[in-house]
Amino acid sequence: MVSTAVPPRTLSSTFLLGLASVASWFIVRPFLDPIPSLSGLYTSIGFSLFAFIATLYLVPALGPTFIKAHLSGRDLLKDYATPIPESLGLVCASVYTLALILFIPFAFSDSLTIHLTQTPEGIFVPEFPHSRLSVYLSSLLSLLMTTILGFLDDVFDIRWRHKLPIPIIASIPLLMVYFAERGNTHIVVPLPLRFLLGSLLNLGGINGSEVGQALIIATSVILNDLFTSLGQLASVYRSTFSGVRQNAGMAYGSKELVERHLFSPYFMLPLVAVCSGFMYHNWYPARAFPGDTLCYVTGMAFAVVGIQGHFSKTLLLFFLPQIFNFVLSCPQLFGLVPCPRHRVPRFDKVTNLLHPSKAIFMKPPSKLAATVLWILSFFKLVDLTLHLSGVILETTNLTILNFFLVRLGPMNEKKLVQVLICCQICGSVLAFSVRYGLAGLVYDGDRR
Amino acid sequence: MVSTAVPPRTLSSTFLLGLASVASWFIVRPFLDPIPSLSGLYTSIGFSLFAFIATLYLVPALGPTFIKAHLSGRDLLKDYATPIPESLGLVCASVYTLALILFIPFAFSDSLTIHLTQTPEGIFVPEFPHSRLSVYLSSLLSLLMTTILGFLDDVFDIRWRHKLPIPIIASIPLLMVYFAERGNTHIVVPLPLRFLLGSLLNLGGINGSEVGQALIIATSVILNDLFTSLGQLASVYRSTFSGVRQNAGMAYGSKELVERHLFSPYFMLPLVAVCSGFMYHNWYPARAFPGDTLCYVTGMAFAVVGIQGHFSKTLLLFFLPQIFNFVLSCPQLFGLVPCPRHRVPRFDKVTNLLHPSKAIFMKPPSKLAATVLWILSFFKLVDLTLHLSGVILETTNLTILNFFLVRLGPMNEKKLVQVLICCQICGSVLAFSVRYGLAGLVYDGDRR
Repeated sequence: MVSTAVPPRTLSSTFLLGLASVASWFIVRPFLDPIPSLSGLYTSIGFSLFAFIATLYLVPALGPTFIKAHLSGRDLLKDYATPIPESLGLVCASVYTLALILFIPFAFSDSLTIHLTQTPEGIFVPEFPHSRLSVYLSSLLSLLMTTILGFLDDVFDIRWRHKLPIPIIASIPLLMVYFAERGNTHIVVPLPLRFLLGSLLNLGGINGSEVGQALIIATSVILNDLFTSLGQLASVYRSTFSGVRQNAGMAYGSKELVERHLFSPYFMLPLVAVCSGFMYHNWYPARAFPGDTLCYVTGMAFAVVGIQGHFSKTLLLFFLPQIFNFVLSCPQLFGLVPCPRHRVPRFDKVTNLLHPSKAIFMKPPSKLAATVLWILSFFKLVDLTLHLSGVILETTNLTILNFFLVRLGPMNEKKLVQVLICCQICGSVLAFSVRYGLAGLVYDGDRR
Repeated sequence: MVSTAVPPRTLSSTFLLGLASVASWFIVRPFLDPIPSLSGLYTSIGFSLFAFIATLYLVPALGPTFIKAHLSGRDLLKDYATPIPESLGLVCASVYTLALILFIPFAFSDSLTIHLTQTPEGIFVPEFPHSRLSVYLSSLLSLLMTTILGFLDDVFDIRWRHKLPIPIIASIPLLMVYFAERGNTHIVVPLPLRFLLGSLLNLGGINGSEVGQALIIATSVILNDLFTSLGQLASVYRSTFSGVRQNAGMAYGSKELVERHLFSPYFMLPLVAVCSGFMYHNWYPARAFPGDTLCYVTGMAFAVVGIQGHFSKTLLLFFLPQIFNFVLSCPQLFGLVPCPRHRVPRFDKVTNLLHPSKAIFMKPPSKLAATVLWILSFFKLVDLTLHLSGVILETTNLTILNFFLVRLGPMNEKKLVQVLICCQICGSVLAFSVRYGLAGLVYDGDRR
């Protein structure tokens, strides 16, 4: 049952044109009728829609160019050998950073009209938020460096130990601006977290997994911003109605908080856009592979947003499936259990189903390894193959994808990615209930 | 006389270590004994030396990786067919931007200790030069985008008409910051100039030509900064000694001018470093080719410096040979004279000499074309091959390299690049005499 490769997915130009006009409306809207402190958000949505269109259009258009430049690969979980263009995450990353760069004047034009300070000469000049601009620019620099490094990884296939410094090098611009401003802005740079975010995302191997995760996490971050802003607005109104005098400091404080939480949708909206655009072409059966660039860049975008927006802890909650995958992988990563080069599920050509892939013990496992595996097996996290004597011969690989296959039985690739995405959504829902529900239990009822 | 390809040039580790210790001294020096407003320059020299070492070491080390990634080419002007690694300008560009990024805290730490402003609460806080930082960061963003686009050009071999928007896209960050700040800083962005600088540099085709030109132009810019600063210092001293009261405004003005002229060596010193490091491996016979990335990035660096440093006109003078080449090329660029795909000089394997390459007229040239060619021929800029009837059959290609070969006769490649570099140096000397000599004639003698 060898099938030929599927042709690229096409798009009706009517749909694209319709979308482009909606996008234009979002960009033009603030000019016609300025809405204080929200006009930036409108423009951001407009740019994101254009980024979505650009990704939808460019990914299939540039596919042949990538294949010609030796950037293609065979889909390991399919029965056809047609080369699929690889590293198209570069296109997403480029569209994403370009959208962010074009957005600069809109992100900062609002502030121009609001603050006016008096110079010693008595002239009122707009107080430009240079500090915020520096932070924005250094975030962009970090994202661009991540793009370069991710693409270099795709082209030159960098060895694992040479990859380690990549997230560190890429966060240098942010760090440097932090050093230069010496705490003038409130950037905290937890480097290990940043490193983690980049590598956590790379649990893929099946069509649509990397992009799907990124999409859900980005959406969760936007929702979190929305909830926080709504909560703040509500508390401001409540204090106004209950007769408590609203002093200038509080208003300023909440304004700053709103601005800080705007920083994060500015970075997340275009990310959602390019990820959904790419998802269309990366969905099972994939017409394009993301390569390493996408994982790196989305990881860096989350790190930037988490750090600049000061909600690293909430952000980590959105990574529950990735953290579970990382913890589960530890015995293989740290050499307790043998680790084959590829740990993607095994594809059965006859039934078209995926089975958990296995790691074989060439010599009996150590006492520690055996104990760990027995515990994992007790919780049905792995499936063990035993010798008659009770010695462990094989174990399923310790990844979240193999865990799903162990728990739910063999399934086809499309189903598996759906399970993964459901799990990611459940993780986000859990994260929200922990963040807002538990916070309500701890603080008094008013804060809920 | 087929010779095998030459092995990579090696470097004694004693030399590299010695250089590294000199570089460290330059970086440590300002910490031991701070020199106001010059400590940044010391650090810049230190970083540049490290960049020089990194380029010297990395170019041969990464050569095989580039060949493996299909980034290699045959040297058209040699008789051996061994692949030479191509696009190693990427290494230079990466080292260059990394050096600039690591330099951020040093470039702006000096200002921290000098300016102190009083807040309304009466606390003295350091007035951080956010505006200068934004300009620096946006310049870096432009350079990084140029690097990405140049490398994409190398990998995907972008078509000529798709290349046109590249310098425009790459200058968007600078433009955006300009729009965002709405003239708060004094950035002028002459886009056409920027475009010109990038493409002007690409007159190469012979080993060492691109890097050689960039090296000389960058050195000229640094010398120009030096002359300007010295001139200013001299005028300040003169006015002090001659009893003219030096008011605060003037001191401030000259301080700002010095800072502005420091901006340019901060960008030029590391460029000189990476170019000389690369020159060592690109010199005849070349062990590595620069690719498009280097031309783009050096062009962008000159544009950034010319625009931020406000001396576009002086900068253009340093491009005299490139402008001559461009003007000479016009009849071929605009279709008056047929233009073959490659216009590099023709290599004669037997004599090992280069001869001017020729463009053949398939049909008799138009009256205008013939007139232009006759004029060029009168000034010995081209060599024409005539039919007995006087109709032009062939002309040497209209580039500066072919012009040298027409004027000075066939020569080997090494000699030709030496002639080109001499010409570039003469151009800079002429530029300096125009800039300082003529300025002296126009203004009074004191200003000379």
